[in-house]
Amino acid sequence: MKAYGKVYIVGIGPGGMDHMTPAASKAIGDSSCIVGYKTYIDMLGNIGEGKEVLSSGMKKEVDRCQKVIELAMEGNTVSLVSSGDCGVYGMAGIMIQLIQESGEDIEFEVVPGVTAANSAAACLGAPIMHDYVTISLSDLLTDWELIKKRIHCAGMGDFVTCIYNPKSKGRQTQIEEARDILLQYKSTGTPVGIVRNAKRDGQQTVVTTLEEMLEHDIDMMSTVIVGNSTSYIKDGVIVTPRGYRI
Amino acid sequence: MKAYGKVYIVGIGPGGMDHMTPAASKAIGDSSCIVGYKTYIDMLGNIGEGKEVLSSGMKKEVDRCQKVIELAMEGNTVSLVSSGDCGVYGMAGIMIQLIQESGEDIEFEVVPGVTAANSAAACLGAPIMHDYVTISLSDLLTDWELIKKRIHCAGMGDFVTCIYNPKSKGRQTQIEEARDILLQYKSTGTPVGIVRNAKRDGQQTVVTTLEEMLEHDIDMMSTVIVGNSTSYIKDGVIVTPRGYRI
Repeated sequence: MKAYGKVYIVGIGPGGMDHMTPAASKAIGDSSCIVGYKTYIDMLGNIGEGKEVLSSGMKKEVDRCQKVIELAMEGNTVSLVSSGDCGVYGMAGIMIQLIQESGEDIEFEVVPGVTAANSAAACLGAPIMHDYVTISLSDLLTDWELIKKRIHCAGMGDFVTCIYNPKSKGRQTQIEEARDILLQYKSTGTPVGIVRNAKRDGQQTVVTTLEEMLEHDIDMMSTVIVGNSTSYIKDGVIVTPRGYRI
Repeated sequence: MKAYGKVYIVGIGPGGMDHMTPAASKAIGDSSCIVGYKTYIDMLGNIGEGKEVLSSGMKKEVDRCQKVIELAMEGNTVSLVSSGDCGVYGMAGIMIQLIQESGEDIEFEVVPGVTAANSAAACLGAPIMHDYVTISLSDLLTDWELIKKRIHCAGMGDFVTCIYNPKSKGRQTQIEEARDILLQYKSTGTPVGIVRNAKRDGQQTVVTTLEEMLEHDIDMMSTVIVGNSTSYIKDGVIVTPRGYRI
């Protein structure tokens, strides 16, 4: 009987090869098969050459993981790739769940990557120098009431707030509601950064305020970072100070 | 007059070279001077060879940044290095503040890295698949009352909670208080992961519960991740599911 192959669950970072860790490159390089959403696999450039590549559209996460298990059971080393960090709104959770449910003794390893909160922050200056939350506004898999409650808590705790999946074609109003909730706790002048395609081709950065943020384009490729009460904008850069005496 | 050199503010990731991005390596490689806390510079191995290296002890962040400005004004390209992501409890904020205050037109770039929440999560399975907060328990620069308030908000919002700087020699009781606050919102069986030296030499991982977490060693090299109400432990791994139907 053929031994099972190993499964790597890999965060490839924001997309540019410059921000993918050597551990991620190595995992993909050591794999005979790569599985992932097409957009992410395209970001890998020629690293996938000579390998079996299985890409699929969105909303087929479970199928994709089942395929990974099949491939591993056939003896292949497999990399399942997500953009950013695979452990943050990525594929790590569902992949591990399905491996465990299969009852098969398949070895797996999670390879972390630079997640959007960090890549977007780097484009804006230093907005998340202090305690922060990340919240996804996607209510496909999460009850909107729970998401709203979390936005309230983020406001109440004066957390810097990193918003993932702020908007999509079918989901337009959530970011407006989120902003209205935050305005119950944060001033209108609170710095807001909107970063589209952070640290990859097509990067666009907007520095604005909670009052004016909705006048700017926000889409599913954007990450929105809302400052805390000490954050400020200077020379087009957002800084959340951490209290050093200078 | 000599032109000013550029300043890179670089997150080197958890410490192992495997998890430092090519962009970080390149920034350091392009610099003639490297400035940082000694422990971090030691992690760079031979990447610093042939460069001027200025390392200093902790609690001298402002001096370190002033030195960076001096070096840049002398025409040097300088990398200021932090472990993890330099934009999360790192050097990006204070460095940008001081560059701006200097009034000098010094170009800077923030190079993001894999922060401890993500590297520790990867060691534990998939604990931060859903909305999470990061909170530092260090009250050197932040009022303890504010930190406690944030822990309450993290509990109230059922956020996965990533705790940075949980304990140091001089700071022993904060993690106990933090746990007691979280127990007001989370059940005793809530999964907790304690990762020491995540993704670098000396990595140690403990998977436990909110009830039992204080029976394990926690120190300043540790990151503590407390799950949300749906997190579970199976086969020594923590998973916070994201609601896929499987």
